[in-house]
Amino acid sequence: MRGIKASPGIAIGQAYLLQKDIKIEKATVEDRKKELARLDEAIAASIGQLKRIMDKVAKEMGENAATIFDAHIMILEDPEFIPEIRSYIEKEGTSAEYAVAEVVKKYAEMFDAMKDTYLKERAADIKDVGNRIISNLRGQIYDLSEIPNGTIVVARDLSPSDTAQMDKSKVEAFLTDEGGKTSHTAIMARTMEIPAVVGLGDVTHQVKDGDIVIVDGNEGEVYLNPDNDTLSLYMKKKEEYEEYKEKLKSLTTLPALTRDGRKVELEANIGTPKDVEAALSNGAEGIGLFRTEFLYMDRNNLPTEDEQFEAYKKVVTSMGCKRVTIRTLDIGGDKDIPYLGLEKEENPFLGWRAIRFCLDRPEIFKTQLRAILRASAYGKVSIMYPMISDIEEVRKANKLLEEAKSELRSNGIPYDLNIEVGIMVEIPSAALTADILAREVDFFSIGTNDLTQYTLAVDRGNQRVRGYYNYFQPGVLRLIKYCIEQAHKHGIYTAMCGEMAGDPEATKILLGLGLDVFSMSASSIPLVKDVIRNTTMEEARALAEKALMNG
Amino acid sequence: MRGIKASPGIAIGQAYLLQKDIKIEKATVEDRKKELARLDEAIAASIGQLKRIMDKVAKEMGENAATIFDAHIMILEDPEFIPEIRSYIEKEGTSAEYAVAEVVKKYAEMFDAMKDTYLKERAADIKDVGNRIISNLRGQIYDLSEIPNGTIVVARDLSPSDTAQMDKSKVEAFLTDEGGKTSHTAIMARTMEIPAVVGLGDVTHQVKDGDIVIVDGNEGEVYLNPDNDTLSLYMKKKEEYEEYKEKLKSLTTLPALTRDGRKVELEANIGTPKDVEAALSNGAEGIGLFRTEFLYMDRNNLPTEDEQFEAYKKVVTSMGCKRVTIRTLDIGGDKDIPYLGLEKEENPFLGWRAIRFCLDRPEIFKTQLRAILRASAYGKVSIMYPMISDIEEVRKANKLLEEAKSELRSNGIPYDLNIEVGIMVEIPSAALTADILAREVDFFSIGTNDLTQYTLAVDRGNQRVRGYYNYFQPGVLRLIKYCIEQAHKHGIYTAMCGEMAGDPEATKILLGLGLDVFSMSASSIPLVKDVIRNTTMEEARALAEKALMNG
Repeated sequence: MRGIKASPGIAIGQAYLLQKDIKIEKATVEDRKKELARLDEAIAASIGQLKRIMDKVAKEMGENAATIFDAHIMILEDPEFIPEIRSYIEKEGTSAEYAVAEVVKKYAEMFDAMKDTYLKERAADIKDVGNRIISNLRGQIYDLSEIPNGTIVVARDLSPSDTAQMDKSKVEAFLTDEGGKTSHTAIMARTMEIPAVVGLGDVTHQVKDGDIVIVDGNEGEVYLNPDNDTLSLYMKKKEEYEEYKEKLKSLTTLPALTRDGRKVELEANIGTPKDVEAALSNGAEGIGLFRTEFLYMDRNNLPTEDEQFEAYKKVVTSMGCKRVTIRTLDIGGDKDIPYLGLEKEENPFLGWRAIRFCLDRPEIFKTQLRAILRASAYGKVSIMYPMISDIEEVRKANKLLEEAKSELRSNGIPYDLNIEVGIMVEIPSAALTADILAREVDFFSIGTNDLTQYTLAVDRGNQRVRGYYNYFQPGVLRLIKYCIEQAHKHGIYTAMCGEMAGDPEATKILLGLGLDVFSMSASSIPLVKDVIRNTTMEEARALAEKALMNG
Repeated sequence: MRGIKASPGIAIGQAYLLQKDIKIEKATVEDRKKELARLDEAIAASIGQLKRIMDKVAKEMGENAATIFDAHIMILEDPEFIPEIRSYIEKEGTSAEYAVAEVVKKYAEMFDAMKDTYLKERAADIKDVGNRIISNLRGQIYDLSEIPNGTIVVARDLSPSDTAQMDKSKVEAFLTDEGGKTSHTAIMARTMEIPAVVGLGDVTHQVKDGDIVIVDGNEGEVYLNPDNDTLSLYMKKKEEYEEYKEKLKSLTTLPALTRDGRKVELEANIGTPKDVEAALSNGAEGIGLFRTEFLYMDRNNLPTEDEQFEAYKKVVTSMGCKRVTIRTLDIGGDKDIPYLGLEKEENPFLGWRAIRFCLDRPEIFKTQLRAILRASAYGKVSIMYPMISDIEEVRKANKLLEEAKSELRSNGIPYDLNIEVGIMVEIPSAALTADILAREVDFFSIGTNDLTQYTLAVDRGNQRVRGYYNYFQPGVLRLIKYCIEQAHKHGIYTAMCGEMAGDPEATKILLGLGLDVFSMSASSIPLVKDVIRNTTMEEARALAEKALMNG
């Protein structure tokens, strides 16, 4: 099977199928008492599992993310739900499994028919709890907290709460039906430095629990129950790859320098302060993208200025004198954050999001700007505005930034007077007017994920058109080229923080186009550095020239 | 009040509020028999109205579009619905209005709670029928088929079925809360050549039935119950505008020639064969965009090759030897056409639509291509592919076109061997690679509506971000410029068929950028021609240069 390479490396292990269809046949029992006892045991086991998961998720993702599991425990403690299963067994004399399935079906249908979206979604919770009880009745593993060593997790797609439940030390690789290079599964795999192949279509139907699977994340290939020859071939490949990774580790302290002496900077993208550790250990020379959405998600109210300040300061101080580029809130109607007043839109990617939202909600935006400014007193901070389409938005944002600065000054609060202000170039019009924008900002950072989406009119999350998403398309490359050229002409630098910056197959072309700063998942830094240290600018420029005319 | 100028002209008339909130107070009656008689009368009147509308809509939009009104009649003839209203009056002794409102509420809630989308939508039908009965009980006008002369229609927005119901000879202007320059209301107003101001926010709450209203479609202004001075001012303005329109009519037979002798072509955009008449009477030199979606909409199965051929042939022969540019199917997941298998997408504008859909459904596409080819034997036809993002799509489409040609040849069916094949340039990557594309097509046609949306990442239908939609943004203009330059370099022509081509405020800039063919709503042709005939290329180029650097 071939899929999308989402994270490099080679793994060999046993499949564990998440999100399986649990099929229940009707069965009657002789001993109803025994069945009731089995049920009680399975419920106790389920509650125990859910409490452990809840603690783990709360620790890793915050209290709010854990409430979903609290809701599951509450279902198990509901005064009607379990008694109804018990009385079903008593009256009908069926197996506990069947009784659970029948009662769950009834409740799920009831919730599913509700008009209120919140109540509707409870149907999924009830089904999830039912499947957990049934798995425990059958002595099967239901969730990722109890998997054995050497597991290859196979799923339709993985959510943040799936990966939080997981005992990460036991997972060797991910395989998913859905998702692309920038899906949560892919990002998680790269962070965990394990191989992943995604977008496999129907791997969840091809694989059974316990199957031996080879995952080649370097080539995007998957082998099910391989013969001995294939197995030994891949054991050798795995060994070679691990040696290569060791070699890459030795690059950590070396500069990103081409053979003919062009030096570029390699920085890391991070999503929370926790990610700084991996950034530093992989040799990041700075943080090219510090996403700030985590501060706003999985909660019911806005983060305070102090909360934000503490988070930013933590990263800034951990990075010492290295640059930390903080991107202001980049959120829109495809995210469910009720307290921000974001509504579901017809085309969220073309909607009210990021800087557009911030300019319409200056109180939210200025709180963030003040927090960033305060953190700038502790190191080297750059501010970056997302989703700029025109110079006017830069001017409006800068006006609010000036207000924030003067508020701090009048309260005697220190900040870096020379703080750099730059923009994400991720909308075609921004790249096309780079000459105009370069006069009023200190740097560009090209966001290739969105830039590619808009330039080619492709939603990369839409399976039907995924094949059209291609950052090597010459139109996209020409925008990147123009942006870099104009930046240099105006004496500012251009970074890139989209997936392309961490794709070793794009490295030479980007070098050839003159990119100054490559920012990526920390784990990709050694790979990209290896490519840079083994090429020359002459070779890179020739490749870039060719790619620009490709067609 | 100020809104968006959607169609030029000045109108003075009496407001008629469509889609009003009908409020019902509980009232008891003395004479229940009399109330029952009133109800019967109102129902008979309602059925009569619906039958008339059904005939009108069937004639103007086809049998399928009329089925909605058939469904309304069926509700009135339902064996339970009306008897339930009758027995409510008999038992409760309330007014017929209140009885209708209560029974409708009950049914609507019942349907609304259903899971099946089809049944859910029946709730709106029931409410609509209820409001019609109540309006008839009150002796009020409920729909647009019965409005008096000199009416200014005020609505949240107008749907195709609203405008089909309308007695168009009696409507003076449209005012709507929602919509933009390219909404159905705007397009309809321009086709009818009456003024319209849209996107007014809450005009439906500001205006009452019978208010005197001045609509200035040239400036996007609206005056409610004006004083005598304003009224006489606008009566004068209206007269002047009508004289100006008369003058424009005299331009019909003159060429679109600048004062210094640059000749461009002015063509019309059409949506159905019926629109050809207005195109010719306004002096269109060709059809720059013949939309073919009407053939696929409001029906339950695909149009046959013969049906399509007849429609295309009709337009081609009516246009004599003038060029007819037929755009192949341009449809996506934001349209509800169940038989095409289009699903609702997260970001339909970035999804599976237009040429992407056609390349994945070659049988549908080739049927259309064969029909177009057959029509090309009767005049001068050009084929135009929408939503091209890369040269590969052109090659794939042309391969299918060649297959269609060879099928016709082997059956001895004639077609124009020199038929031109061009592409819509409406995705930034297409404009950015115009040099590559120009080598393999016969013409470009810039679709500024979508090009602007993608270049600026703005859904123009989203009220929240409407302000960002601007085809004068220099990034958009630079794409247009590059596209035209590369076309000329490769010896092909560039047309434009987006709204911008018919905007007199954009005419000089587009002239200055070198555009060859302007294609627009027929009614805009004289206006644009007037601008062209009163400028020079020198002035146009200077304006274009300035606009390209605006910021």
